Amino acid sequence: MHTKEYIAERFRQLQDDICRQLEAVDGGGVFLEDNWIRPEGGGGRSRVIEGKTIEKGGVMFSAVYGPLPETIAKSMQLPPTDFFATGVSIVIHPHSPMAPIIHMNVRYFETGTGRWWFGGGIDLTPHYVVPDDARFFHGQLKSVCHRFHPEYYPDFKRQADDYFFLKHRNETRGIGGIFFDYLDDKTGPSQEELFNFAMAVGETFAPVYVNLLHRAAGRPWSEREKRWQMLRRGRYVEFHLVWDRGTKFGLETNGRVESILMSMPPVASWIYNYQPEPGSAEAETLISLRKGVEWA
Amino acid sequence: MHTKEYIAERFRQLQDDICRQLEAVDGGGVFLEDNWIRPEGGGGRSRVIEGKTIEKGGVMFSAVYGPLPETIAKSMQLPPTDFFATGVSIVIHPHSPMAPIIHMNVRYFETGTGRWWFGGGIDLTPHYVVPDDARFFHGQLKSVCHRFHPEYYPDFKRQADDYFFLKHRNETRGIGGIFFDYLDDKTGPSQEELFNFAMAVGETFAPVYVNLLHRAAGRPWSEREKRWQMLRRGRYVEFHLVWDRGTKFGLETNGRVESILMSMPPVASWIYNYQPEPGSAEAETLISLRKGVEWA
Repeated sequence: MHTKEYIAERFRQLQDDICRQLEAVDGGGVFLEDNWIRPEGGGGRSRVIEGKTIEKGGVMFSAVYGPLPETIAKSMQLPPTDFFATGVSIVIHPHSPMAPIIHMNVRYFETGTGRWWFGGGIDLTPHYVVPDDARFFHGQLKSVCHRFHPEYYPDFKRQADDYFFLKHRNETRGIGGIFFDYLDDKTGPSQEELFNFAMAVGETFAPVYVNLLHRAAGRPWSEREKRWQMLRRGRYVEFHLVWDRGTKFGLETNGRVESILMSMPPVASWIYNYQPEPGSAEAETLISLRKGVEWA
Repeated sequence: MHTKEYIAERFRQLQDDICRQLEAVDGGGVFLEDNWIRPEGGGGRSRVIEGKTIEKGGVMFSAVYGPLPETIAKSMQLPPTDFFATGVSIVIHPHSPMAPIIHMNVRYFETGTGRWWFGGGIDLTPHYVVPDDARFFHGQLKSVCHRFHPEYYPDFKRQADDYFFLKHRNETRGIGGIFFDYLDDKTGPSQEELFNFAMAVGETFAPVYVNLLHRAAGRPWSEREKRWQMLRRGRYVEFHLVWDRGTKFGLETNGRVESILMSMPPVASWIYNYQPEPGSAEAETLISLRKGVEWA
Protein backbone atom coordinates (compact mmCIF):
# COMPACT_ATOMS: atom_id res chain seq x y z
CA MET A 1 0.00 0.00 0.00
CA HIS A 2 1.27 3.48 -0.90
CA THR A 3 1.75 5.88 1.99
CA LYS A 4 -0.25 9.07 1.99
CA GLU A 5 3.01 11.02 1.74
CA TYR A 6 3.92 9.15 -1.45
CA ILE A 7 0.53 9.85 -3.00
CA ALA A 8 0.72 13.54 -2.06
CA GLU A 9 4.19 13.78 -3.60
CA ARG A 10 3.03 12.19 -6.87
CA PHE A 11 0.05 14.56 -6.99
CA ARG A 12 2.42 17.46 -6.47
CA GLN A 13 4.53 16.27 -9.41
CA LEU A 14 1.34 15.95 -11.45
CA GLN A 15 0.63 19.62 -10.75
CA ASP A 16 4.15 20.48 -12.04
CA ASP A 17 3.72 18.40 -15.21
CA ILE A 18 0.33 19.89 -15.99
CA CYS A 19 1.50 23.46 -15.45
CA ARG A 20 4.42 22.92 -17.83
CA GLN A 21 2.15 21.57 -20.54
CA LEU A 22 -0.38 24.38 -20.10
CA GLU A 23 2.31 27.08 -20.23
CA ALA A 24 3.62 25.54 -23.43
CA VAL A 25 0.22 25.57 -25.14
CA ASP A 26 -0.64 29.02 -23.83
CA GLY A 27 2.31 30.56 -25.66
CA GLY A 28 2.96 33.44 -23.30
CA GLY A 29 1.41 33.12 -19.86
CA VAL A 30 3.21 31.80 -16.82
CA PHE A 31 1.74 30.39 -13.64
CA LEU A 32 2.09 32.46 -10.49
CA GLU A 33 2.54 30.40 -7.36
CA ASP A 34 0.96 31.01 -4.01
CA ASN A 35 1.75 28.77 -1.04
CA TRP A 36 -0.67 28.67 1.83
CA ILE A 37 -0.86 27.01 5.20
CA ARG A 38 -3.98 25.58 6.79
CA PRO A 39 -4.08 26.57 10.47
CA GLU A 40 -5.49 23.16 11.47
CA GLY A 41 -2.81 21.22 9.52
CA GLY A 42 -1.25 21.01 6.06
CA GLY A 43 -1.55 23.49 3.25
CA GLY A 44 -1.34 23.90 -0.47
CA ARG A 45 0.42 25.19 -3.53
CA SER A 46 -1.89 27.24 -5.75
CA ARG A 47 -0.88 28.08 -9.32
CA VAL A 48 -2.82 30.61 -11.31
CA ILE A 49 -2.30 31.76 -14.91
CA GLU A 50 -3.61 34.71 -16.91
CA GLY A 51 -2.24 33.98 -20.32
CA LYS A 52 -2.64 34.51 -24.05
CA THR A 53 -4.86 31.50 -24.68
CA ILE A 54 -6.00 30.87 -21.12
CA GLU A 55 -7.88 33.86 -19.75
CA LYS A 56 -7.92 32.48 -16.22
CA GLY A 57 -6.74 29.12 -15.03
CA GLY A 58 -5.98 27.53 -11.69
CA VAL A 59 -4.03 24.35 -11.01
CA MET A 60 -4.21 23.74 -7.29
CA PHE A 61 -2.41 21.17 -5.19
CA SER A 62 -3.18 20.63 -1.52
CA ALA A 63 -2.43 18.14 1.24
CA VAL A 64 -4.33 18.85 4.44
CA TYR A 65 -4.91 16.96 7.66
CA GLY A 66 -6.20 17.30 11.20
CA PRO A 67 -9.34 16.33 13.08
CA LEU A 68 -12.12 15.45 10.66
CA PRO A 69 -14.67 18.32 10.72
CA GLU A 70 -17.77 17.15 12.54
CA THR A 71 -20.08 17.89 9.62
CA ILE A 72 -18.12 15.53 7.32
CA ALA A 73 -17.83 12.85 9.97
CA LYS A 74 -21.60 12.94 10.39
CA SER A 75 -22.39 12.94 6.67
CA MET A 76 -20.09 9.93 6.26
CA GLN A 77 -21.33 8.17 9.39
CA LEU A 78 -17.80 8.10 10.79
CA PRO A 79 -16.83 8.36 14.48
CA PRO A 80 -14.66 11.37 15.47
CA THR A 81 -11.26 10.74 13.82
CA ASP A 82 -8.37 12.40 12.03
CA PHE A 83 -8.21 12.73 8.28
CA PHE A 84 -5.68 13.33 5.53
CA ALA A 85 -6.72 14.63 2.11
CA THR A 86 -4.60 15.42 -0.90
CA GLY A 87 -5.50 16.31 -4.46
CA VAL A 88 -5.05 18.33 -7.60
CA SER A 89 -7.90 20.50 -8.79
CA ILE A 90 -8.06 22.43 -12.06
CA VAL A 91 -10.40 24.80 -13.85
CA ILE A 92 -9.39 26.58 -17.08
CA HIS A 93 -11.35 29.40 -18.72
CA PRO A 94 -10.00 30.11 -22.22
CA HIS A 95 -10.19 33.51 -23.93
CA SER A 96 -11.82 32.09 -27.03
CA PRO A 97 -15.55 31.30 -26.79
CA MET A 98 -14.86 28.57 -29.35
CA ALA A 99 -12.66 26.67 -26.86
CA PRO A 100 -14.19 24.80 -23.91
CA ILE A 101 -13.90 25.35 -20.17
CA ILE A 102 -12.38 22.26 -18.55
CA HIS A 103 -12.32 20.92 -15.02
CA MET A 104 -10.19 18.10 -13.59
CA ASN A 105 -9.78 16.80 -10.08
CA VAL A 106 -8.07 13.79 -8.51
CA ARG A 107 -8.07 13.31 -4.77
CA TYR A 108 -7.16 10.82 -2.07
CA PHE A 109 -8.73 10.70 1.37
CA GLU A 110 -7.62 8.72 4.41
CA THR A 111 -9.10 8.60 7.92
CA GLY A 112 -7.43 7.83 11.21
CA THR A 113 -9.62 4.74 11.45
CA GLY A 114 -7.94 3.21 8.41
CA ARG A 115 -10.51 3.99 5.73
CA TRP A 116 -9.27 5.45 2.45
CA TRP A 117 -10.63 6.18 -1.02
CA PHE A 118 -9.99 7.99 -4.29
CA GLY A 119 -12.25 10.42 -6.08
CA GLY A 120 -12.04 12.66 -9.09
CA GLY A 121 -13.02 13.21 -12.68
CA ILE A 122 -12.74 15.37 -15.76
CA ASP A 123 -15.58 17.23 -17.41
CA LEU A 124 -15.87 19.60 -20.31
CA THR A 125 -18.01 22.72 -20.68
CA PRO A 126 -17.90 23.97 -24.27
CA HIS A 127 -19.52 27.36 -24.86
CA TYR A 128 -20.50 25.88 -28.24
CA VAL A 129 -20.85 22.11 -28.42
CA VAL A 130 -18.74 20.78 -31.33
CA PRO A 131 -19.75 17.13 -31.85
CA ASP A 132 -16.35 16.07 -33.17
CA ASP A 133 -14.59 17.58 -30.12
CA ALA A 134 -17.10 15.93 -27.82
CA ARG A 135 -16.51 12.53 -29.43
CA PHE A 136 -12.73 12.99 -29.17
CA PHE A 137 -12.98 14.04 -25.50
CA HIS A 138 -15.24 11.19 -24.44
CA GLY A 139 -13.26 8.73 -26.58
CA GLN A 140 -10.08 9.63 -24.69
CA LEU A 141 -11.79 9.24 -21.31
CA LYS A 142 -13.31 5.94 -22.36
CA SER A 143 -9.96 4.64 -23.45
CA VAL A 144 -8.18 5.56 -20.18
CA CYS A 145 -11.04 4.01 -18.18
CA HIS A 146 -10.95 0.82 -20.25
CA ARG A 147 -7.31 0.27 -19.34
CA PHE A 148 -8.57 -0.38 -15.79
CA HIS A 149 -12.12 -1.70 -15.86
CA PRO A 150 -14.78 -2.16 -18.55
CA GLU A 151 -17.47 -0.75 -16.27
CA TYR A 152 -15.59 2.43 -15.30
CA TYR A 153 -16.44 4.55 -18.32
CA PRO A 154 -20.20 3.83 -18.48
CA ASP A 155 -20.49 4.08 -14.70
CA PHE A 156 -18.43 7.25 -14.23
CA LYS A 157 -19.87 8.89 -17.33
CA ARG A 158 -23.36 8.46 -15.90
CA GLN A 159 -22.20 9.84 -12.56
CA ALA A 160 -20.78 12.92 -14.33
CA ASP A 161 -24.09 13.45 -16.13
CA ASP A 162 -25.88 13.31 -12.79
CA TYR A 163 -23.41 15.45 -10.90
CA PHE A 164 -22.68 18.28 -13.36
CA PHE A 165 -26.34 19.19 -13.66
CA LEU A 166 -28.12 22.49 -13.04
CA LYS A 167 -31.41 21.24 -11.68
CA HIS A 168 -32.96 24.73 -11.70
CA ARG A 169 -32.20 25.10 -15.43
CA ASN A 170 -32.82 21.45 -16.25
CA GLU A 171 -29.56 21.44 -18.19
CA THR A 172 -26.14 19.81 -17.79
CA ARG A 173 -23.33 22.27 -17.24
CA GLY A 174 -21.52 20.93 -20.32
CA ILE A 175 -21.04 17.66 -22.13
CA GLY A 176 -20.03 15.82 -18.96
CA GLY A 177 -17.08 13.46 -18.77
CA ILE A 178 -16.32 11.14 -15.88
CA PHE A 179 -16.89 11.51 -12.15
CA PHE A 180 -16.05 8.97 -9.44
CA ASP A 181 -15.88 8.98 -5.65
CA TYR A 182 -15.33 6.57 -2.74
CA LEU A 183 -13.24 4.22 -4.91
CA ASP A 184 -11.71 1.79 -2.43
CA ASP A 185 -10.65 -1.85 -2.33
CA LYS A 186 -14.19 -2.99 -1.59
CA THR A 187 -14.73 -2.24 -5.29
CA GLY A 188 -12.11 -4.89 -6.20
CA PRO A 189 -8.75 -3.37 -7.11
CA SER A 190 -5.98 -2.67 -4.62
CA GLN A 191 -5.03 0.80 -3.38
CA GLU A 192 -2.01 0.76 -5.73
CA GLU A 193 -4.22 -0.06 -8.72
CA LEU A 194 -6.71 2.65 -7.82
CA PHE A 195 -3.88 5.12 -7.40
CA ASN A 196 -2.68 4.17 -10.89
CA PHE A 197 -6.16 4.84 -12.21
CA ALA A 198 -6.37 8.25 -10.50
CA MET A 199 -2.92 9.15 -11.89
CA ALA A 200 -3.92 7.98 -15.36
CA VAL A 201 -6.95 10.27 -15.23
CA GLY A 202 -4.73 13.14 -14.04
CA GLU A 203 -2.20 12.49 -16.81
CA THR A 204 -4.91 12.36 -19.46
CA PHE A 205 -6.01 15.88 -18.68
CA ALA A 206 -3.22 17.99 -20.22
CA PRO A 207 -2.77 16.26 -23.60
CA VAL A 208 -6.54 16.13 -24.10
CA TYR A 209 -7.03 19.81 -23.29
CA VAL A 210 -4.01 20.84 -25.39
CA ASN A 211 -5.57 18.98 -28.30
CA LEU A 212 -8.92 20.71 -27.75
CA LEU A 213 -7.25 24.13 -27.63
CA HIS A 214 -5.45 23.39 -30.91
CA ARG A 215 -8.75 22.38 -32.50
CA ALA A 216 -10.33 25.67 -31.37
CA ALA A 217 -7.39 27.88 -32.34
CA GLY A 218 -8.50 28.27 -35.95
CA ARG A 219 -12.13 29.03 -35.24
CA PRO A 220 -13.12 32.67 -35.77
CA TRP A 221 -15.41 34.46 -33.35
CA SER A 222 -16.92 37.91 -32.88
CA GLU A 223 -18.80 39.90 -30.26
CA ARG A 224 -21.79 37.61 -30.61
CA GLU A 225 -19.83 34.53 -29.52
CA LYS A 226 -18.16 36.48 -26.73
CA ARG A 227 -21.54 37.55 -25.35
CA TRP A 228 -22.71 33.94 -25.39
CA GLN A 229 -19.52 32.85 -23.62
CA MET A 230 -20.26 35.37 -20.84
CA LEU A 231 -23.76 33.94 -20.39
CA ARG A 232 -22.46 30.36 -20.34
CA ARG A 233 -19.92 31.43 -17.73
CA GLY A 234 -22.84 32.76 -15.70
CA ARG A 235 -24.24 29.22 -15.74
CA TYR A 236 -20.84 27.94 -14.63
CA VAL A 237 -21.05 30.28 -11.64
CA GLU A 238 -24.56 29.08 -10.89
CA PHE A 239 -23.45 25.46 -10.88
CA HIS A 240 -20.54 26.13 -8.57
CA LEU A 241 -22.31 28.28 -6.04
CA VAL A 242 -25.66 26.50 -5.98
CA TRP A 243 -25.02 22.82 -6.72
CA ASP A 244 -21.34 21.88 -6.35
CA ARG A 245 -21.01 19.84 -3.16
CA GLY A 246 -17.32 20.64 -2.73
CA THR A 247 -17.89 24.38 -2.98
CA LYS A 248 -20.87 24.31 -0.65
CA PHE A 249 -18.99 22.21 1.85
CA GLY A 250 -15.86 24.35 1.66
CA LEU A 251 -17.71 27.63 2.10
CA GLU A 252 -19.78 26.32 4.98
CA THR A 253 -16.80 24.83 6.83
CA ASN A 254 -14.42 27.74 6.70
CA GLY A 255 -12.33 26.39 3.80
CA ARG A 256 -9.81 28.57 1.96
CA VAL A 257 -12.12 30.85 -0.03
CA GLU A 258 -9.63 31.82 -2.74
CA SER A 259 -8.87 28.17 -3.54
CA ILE A 260 -12.52 27.19 -3.53
CA LEU A 261 -13.48 30.07 -5.81
CA MET A 262 -10.54 29.84 -8.19
CA SER A 263 -13.00 28.11 -10.52
CA MET A 264 -15.01 31.31 -10.92
CA PRO A 265 -14.72 32.76 -14.43
CA PRO A 266 -12.80 36.02 -14.88
CA VAL A 267 -15.98 37.72 -16.18
CA ALA A 268 -19.54 36.42 -16.44
CA SER A 269 -22.88 37.93 -17.31
CA TRP A 270 -26.60 37.53 -16.84
CA ILE A 271 -29.40 38.78 -19.09
CA TYR A 272 -33.00 38.53 -17.92
CA ASN A 273 -34.90 35.77 -19.71
CA TYR A 274 -32.44 35.43 -22.58
CA GLN A 275 -33.55 32.95 -25.24
CA PRO A 276 -31.31 32.18 -28.22
CA GLU A 277 -32.90 32.29 -31.65
CA PRO A 278 -34.32 28.90 -32.63
CA GLY A 279 -31.95 27.07 -34.96
CA SER A 280 -28.93 29.21 -34.01
CA ALA A 281 -25.63 27.68 -32.88
CA GLU A 282 -26.48 28.83 -29.35
CA ALA A 283 -29.86 27.08 -29.42
CA GLU A 284 -28.21 23.92 -30.82
CA THR A 285 -25.76 23.94 -27.93
CA LEU A 286 -28.59 24.17 -25.39
CA ILE A 287 -30.21 21.13 -27.00
CA SER A 288 -27.01 19.12 -26.39
CA LEU A 289 -26.85 20.04 -22.70
CA ARG A 290 -28.76 17.07 -21.40
CA LYS A 291 -28.01 13.80 -19.67
CA GLY A 292 -27.48 10.52 -21.46
CA VAL A 293 -25.90 11.66 -24.73
CA GLU A 294 -23.53 8.88 -25.82
CA TRP A 295 -20.53 10.58 -27.42
CA ALA A 296 -18.18 7.58 -27.39
CA MET B 1 -58.65 43.05 8.18
CA HIS B 2 -57.58 43.63 4.56
CA THR B 3 -58.28 40.85 2.11
CA LYS B 4 -55.32 39.24 0.35
CA GLU B 5 -56.73 40.52 -2.94
CA TYR B 6 -56.66 44.09 -1.63
CA ILE B 7 -53.06 43.74 -0.46
CA ALA B 8 -51.99 42.21 -3.80
CA GLU B 9 -53.67 45.06 -5.67
CA ARG B 10 -51.91 47.70 -3.57
CA PHE B 11 -48.58 45.95 -4.11
CA ARG B 12 -49.23 45.93 -7.84
CA GLN B 13 -49.88 49.70 -7.72
CA LEU B 14 -46.65 50.08 -5.74
CA GLN B 15 -44.80 48.36 -8.60
CA ASP B 16 -46.37 50.86 -11.04
CA ASP B 17 -45.41 53.86 -8.89
CA ILE B 18 -41.84 52.68 -8.45
CA CYS B 19 -41.35 51.95 -12.15
CA ARG B 20 -42.58 55.45 -13.04
CA GLN B 21 -40.14 57.06 -10.60
CA LEU B 22 -37.22 54.94 -11.77
CA GLU B 23 -37.92 55.67 -15.45
CA ALA B 24 -37.97 59.38 -14.62
CA VAL B 25 -34.60 59.31 -12.88
CA ASP B 26 -33.05 57.02 -15.50
CA GLY B 27 -33.63 59.61 -18.21
CA GLY B 28 -33.97 57.24 -21.13
CA GLY B 29 -34.70 53.63 -20.24
CA VAL B 30 -38.15 52.12 -20.13
CA PHE B 31 -39.30 49.01 -18.33
CA LEU B 32 -40.19 46.00 -20.44
CA GLU B 33 -43.03 43.94 -19.03
CA ASP B 34 -43.27 40.20 -18.93
CA ASN B 35 -46.35 38.49 -17.50
CA TRP B 36 -46.06 34.94 -16.35
CA ILE B 37 -48.38 32.29 -14.96
CA ARG B 38 -47.53 29.82 -12.25
CA PRO B 39 -48.86 26.39 -13.23
CA GLU B 40 -49.87 25.61 -9.63
CA GLY B 41 -51.74 28.93 -9.20
CA GLY B 42 -51.26 32.66 -9.63
CA GLY B 43 -48.47 34.43 -11.49
CA GLY B 44 -46.57 37.65 -11.76
CA ARG B 45 -45.73 40.82 -13.62
CA SER B 46 -42.01 41.24 -14.14
CA ARG B 47 -40.58 44.60 -15.22
CA VAL B 48 -37.01 44.88 -16.35
CA ILE B 49 -35.07 47.97 -17.44
CA GLU B 50 -31.75 48.45 -19.24
CA GLY B 51 -31.37 52.18 -19.13
CA LYS B 52 -28.99 55.13 -19.23
CA THR B 53 -28.39 55.30 -15.48
CA ILE B 54 -29.61 51.85 -14.53
CA GLU B 55 -27.56 49.16 -16.25
CA LYS B 56 -29.93 46.39 -15.18
CA GLY B 57 -32.92 46.66 -12.92
CA GLY B 58 -35.87 44.45 -12.07
CA VAL B 59 -39.11 45.43 -10.34
CA MET B 60 -41.11 42.27 -9.89
CA PHE B 61 -44.66 41.82 -8.67
CA SER B 62 -46.18 38.44 -7.99
CA ALA B 63 -49.25 36.92 -6.34
CA VAL B 64 -49.15 33.16 -6.16
CA TYR B 65 -51.21 30.51 -4.39
CA GLY B 66 -51.88 26.81 -4.18
CA PRO B 67 -50.97 23.96 -1.88
CA LEU B 68 -48.10 24.97 0.41
CA PRO B 69 -44.95 23.14 -0.81
CA GLU B 70 -44.12 20.38 1.65
CA THR B 71 -40.61 21.69 2.33
CA ILE B 72 -41.97 25.07 3.50
CA ALA B 73 -44.73 23.49 5.54
CA LYS B 74 -42.12 21.38 7.33
CA SER B 75 -39.68 24.23 7.91
CA MET B 76 -42.52 26.29 9.39
CA GLN B 77 -44.00 23.39 11.35
CA LEU B 78 -47.32 23.83 9.58
CA PRO B 79 -49.78 21.07 8.69
CA PRO B 80 -50.52 20.56 4.95
CA THR B 81 -52.46 23.67 3.90
CA ASP B 82 -52.93 26.17 1.10
CA PHE B 83 -51.00 29.41 0.90
CA PHE B 84 -51.19 32.80 -0.75
CA ALA B 85 -48.12 34.99 -1.19
CA THR B 86 -47.81 38.39 -2.80
CA GLY B 87 -44.98 40.86 -2.94
CA VAL B 88 -42.79 43.34 -4.77
CA SER B 89 -39.11 42.59 -5.17
CA ILE B 90 -36.47 44.93 -6.62
CA VAL B 91 -32.78 44.89 -7.41
CA ILE B 92 -31.09 47.75 -9.30
CA HIS B 93 -27.55 47.67 -10.69
CA PRO B 94 -26.48 51.16 -11.82
CA HIS B 95 -23.92 51.81 -14.58
CA SER B 96 -21.80 54.07 -12.38
CA PRO B 97 -19.55 52.34 -9.85
CA MET B 98 -20.02 55.46 -7.71
CA ALA B 99 -23.75 54.70 -7.30
CA PRO B 100 -24.95 51.88 -5.05
CA ILE B 101 -26.79 48.66 -5.85
CA ILE B 102 -30.12 48.61 -4.01
CA HIS B 103 -32.55 45.88 -3.04
CA MET B 104 -36.10 46.22 -1.73
CA ASN B 105 -38.76 43.66 -0.97
CA VAL B 106 -42.16 43.72 0.68
CA ARG B 107 -44.28 40.61 0.93
CA TYR B 108 -47.43 39.23 2.50
CA PHE B 109 -48.06 35.58 3.24
CA GLU B 110 -51.31 33.88 4.25
CA THR B 111 -52.05 30.21 4.93
CA GLY B 112 -55.28 28.28 4.61
CA THR B 113 -55.20 27.76 8.38
CA GLY B 114 -55.61 31.49 8.99
CA ARG B 115 -51.99 32.47 9.73
CA TRP B 116 -50.59 35.54 8.00
CA TRP B 117 -47.51 37.75 8.20
CA PHE B 118 -45.52 40.47 6.47
CA GLY B 119 -41.86 40.48 5.60
CA GLY B 120 -39.46 42.67 3.69
CA GLY B 121 -36.72 45.22 3.87
CA ILE B 122 -34.38 47.54 2.00
CA ASP B 123 -30.63 47.27 1.89
CA LEU B 124 -27.88 49.14 0.12
CA THR B 125 -24.69 47.80 -1.49
CA PRO B 126 -22.41 50.68 -2.45
CA HIS B 127 -19.37 49.72 -4.54
CA TYR B 128 -17.64 52.52 -2.62
CA VAL B 129 -19.02 53.35 0.82
CA VAL B 130 -19.71 57.09 1.04
CA PRO B 131 -20.38 57.88 4.73
CA ASP B 132 -22.70 60.80 3.99
CA ASP B 133 -24.82 58.64 1.67
CA ALA B 134 -24.87 55.86 4.26
CA ARG B 135 -26.07 58.26 6.96
CA PHE B 136 -28.77 59.64 4.66
CA PHE B 137 -29.93 56.13 3.71
CA HIS B 138 -30.10 54.81 7.26
CA GLY B 139 -31.61 58.09 8.48
CA GLN B 140 -34.48 57.71 6.02
CA LEU B 141 -35.10 54.09 7.07
CA LYS B 142 -34.96 55.03 10.73
CA SER B 143 -37.48 57.79 10.21
CA VAL B 144 -40.00 55.58 8.39
CA CYS B 145 -39.60 52.87 11.06
CA HIS B 146 -40.08 55.40 13.87
CA ARG B 147 -43.47 56.39 12.49
CA PHE B 148 -44.61 52.88 13.51
CA HIS B 149 -42.58 51.61 16.44
CA PRO B 150 -39.47 52.85 18.30
CA GLU B 151 -37.97 49.34 18.31
CA TYR B 152 -38.41 48.67 14.57
CA TYR B 153 -35.30 50.43 13.31
CA PRO B 154 -32.77 49.01 15.81
CA ASP B 155 -34.33 45.56 15.59
CA PHE B 156 -34.66 45.40 11.79
CA LYS B 157 -31.29 47.08 11.24
CA ARG B 158 -29.63 44.34 13.29
CA GLN B 159 -31.53 41.68 11.36
CA ALA B 160 -30.28 43.19 8.08
CA ASP B 161 -26.69 43.11 9.36
CA ASP B 162 -27.13 39.45 10.22
CA TYR B 163 -28.93 38.47 7.05
CA PHE B 164 -26.94 40.29 4.36
CA PHE B 165 -23.68 38.72 5.42
CA LEU B 166 -21.17 36.64 3.44
CA LYS B 167 -19.99 34.24 6.10
CA HIS B 168 -17.26 32.80 3.85
CA ARG B 169 -15.77 36.28 3.34
CA ASN B 170 -16.58 37.52 6.83
CA GLU B 171 -18.02 40.68 5.30
CA THR B 172 -21.47 42.22 4.97
CA ARG B 173 -22.71 42.50 1.41
CA GLY B 174 -23.10 46.27 1.80
CA ILE B 175 -24.05 48.78 4.47
CA GLY B 176 -27.21 46.89 5.41
CA GLY B 177 -30.55 48.57 5.96
CA ILE B 178 -33.63 46.94 7.45
CA PHE B 179 -34.90 43.37 7.23
CA PHE B 180 -38.02 41.94 8.88
CA ASP B 181 -40.05 38.76 8.64
CA TYR B 182 -43.01 37.01 10.27
CA LEU B 183 -44.52 40.35 11.37
CA ASP B 184 -48.00 39.44 12.59
CA ASP B 185 -50.51 40.63 15.20
CA LYS B 186 -48.79 38.61 17.92
CA THR B 187 -46.18 41.38 17.72
CA GLY B 188 -48.84 43.96 18.75
CA PRO B 189 -50.18 45.92 15.80
CA SER B 190 -53.16 44.89 13.69
CA GLN B 191 -52.89 43.50 10.15
CA GLU B 192 -53.95 46.91 8.79
CA GLU B 193 -51.22 48.67 10.74
CA LEU B 194 -48.59 46.18 9.60
CA PHE B 195 -49.77 46.57 6.02
CA ASN B 196 -49.34 50.33 6.40
CA PHE B 197 -45.81 49.74 7.63
CA ALA B 198 -44.94 47.44 4.72
CA MET B 199 -46.38 49.99 2.27
CA ALA B 200 -44.46 52.80 3.95
CA VAL B 201 -41.23 50.82 3.46
CA GLY B 202 -42.15 50.19 -0.17
CA GLU B 203 -42.95 53.85 -0.74
CA THR B 204 -39.67 54.95 0.84
CA PHE B 205 -37.64 53.01 -1.68
CA ALA B 206 -37.98 55.13 -4.83
CA PRO B 207 -37.40 58.65 -3.41
CA VAL B 208 -34.43 57.40 -1.38
CA TYR B 209 -32.80 55.68 -4.35
CA VAL B 210 -33.52 58.63 -6.66
CA ASN B 211 -31.74 60.84 -4.13
CA LEU B 212 -28.76 58.47 -3.98
CA LEU B 213 -28.51 58.38 -7.79
CA HIS B 214 -28.53 62.21 -7.90
CA ARG B 215 -25.74 62.29 -5.31
CA ALA B 216 -23.66 59.89 -7.39
CA ALA B 217 -24.33 61.58 -10.73
CA GLY B 218 -21.53 64.11 -10.35
CA ARG B 219 -18.85 61.68 -9.21
CA PRO B 220 -16.24 60.89 -11.85
CA TRP B 221 -14.92 57.38 -12.36
CA SER B 222 -12.50 55.55 -14.60
CA GLU B 223 -11.49 52.00 -15.50
CA ARG B 224 -10.17 51.41 -11.99
CA GLU B 225 -13.55 52.04 -10.35
CA LYS B 226 -15.30 49.99 -13.03
CA ARG B 227 -13.02 47.02 -12.31
CA TRP B 228 -13.77 47.30 -8.60
CA GLN B 229 -17.50 47.45 -9.35
CA MET B 230 -17.20 44.15 -11.27
CA LEU B 231 -15.49 42.50 -8.30
CA ARG B 232 -18.12 43.80 -5.87
CA ARG B 233 -20.81 42.49 -8.19
CA GLY B 234 -19.05 39.12 -7.95
CA ARG B 235 -19.62 39.28 -4.19
CA TYR B 236 -23.27 40.14 -4.84
CA VAL B 237 -23.56 36.96 -6.91
CA GLU B 238 -21.88 34.97 -4.14
CA PHE B 239 -24.35 36.26 -1.57
CA HIS B 240 -27.35 35.44 -3.71
CA LEU B 241 -26.34 31.98 -4.81
CA VAL B 242 -24.70 30.80 -1.58
CA TRP B 243 -26.48 32.53 1.31
CA ASP B 244 -29.80 34.07 0.26
CA ARG B 245 -32.56 31.91 1.71
CA GLY B 246 -35.13 33.03 -0.86
CA THR B 247 -32.88 32.20 -3.80
CA LYS B 248 -31.90 28.84 -2.37
CA PHE B 249 -35.47 27.97 -1.60
CA GLY B 250 -36.71 29.11 -5.00
CA LEU B 251 -34.08 27.17 -6.94
CA GLU B 252 -34.59 24.01 -4.92
CA THR B 253 -38.39 24.08 -5.19
CA ASN B 254 -38.77 24.66 -8.90
CA GLY B 255 -39.47 28.41 -8.62
CA ARG B 256 -39.42 30.68 -11.67
CA VAL B 257 -35.69 30.85 -12.41
CA GLU B 258 -35.72 34.11 -14.36
CA SER B 259 -37.54 35.93 -11.56
CA ILE B 260 -35.30 34.49 -8.88
CA LEU B 261 -32.14 35.40 -10.78
CA MET B 262 -33.20 38.85 -11.96
CA SER B 263 -31.02 40.13 -9.12
CA MET B 264 -27.87 38.86 -10.85
CA PRO B 265 -25.68 41.72 -12.10
CA PRO B 266 -25.38 42.27 -15.84
CA VAL B 267 -21.63 41.58 -15.67
CA ALA B 268 -19.46 40.46 -12.74
CA SER B 269 -15.87 39.38 -12.34
CA TRP B 270 -13.55 37.35 -10.15
CA ILE B 271 -9.79 37.76 -9.71
CA TYR B 272 -7.86 35.16 -7.74
CA ASN B 273 -6.80 36.45 -4.32
CA TYR B 274 -7.33 40.13 -5.14
CA GLN B 275 -6.31 42.46 -2.31
CA PRO B 276 -6.82 46.22 -2.64
CA GLU B 277 -3.87 48.46 -1.78
CA PRO B 278 -3.89 49.39 1.92
CA GLY B 279 -5.30 52.89 2.42
CA SER B 280 -7.03 52.95 -1.00
CA ALA B 281 -10.71 53.82 -1.37
CA GLU B 282 -11.34 50.12 -2.11
CA ALA B 283 -9.62 49.04 1.11
CA GLU B 284 -11.56 51.68 3.06
CA THR B 285 -14.81 50.28 1.70
CA LEU B 286 -13.90 46.76 2.80
CA ILE B 287 -13.27 48.08 6.30
CA SER B 288 -16.84 49.44 6.40
CA LEU B 289 -18.39 46.12 5.36
CA ARG B 290 -19.00 44.78 8.83
CA LYS B 291 -21.89 44.33 11.19
CA GLY B 292 -22.90 46.81 13.84
CA VAL B 293 -21.90 50.12 12.22
CA GLU B 294 -24.38 52.74 13.47
CA TRP B 295 -25.00 55.13 10.58
CA ALA B 296 -28.11 56.82 11.99
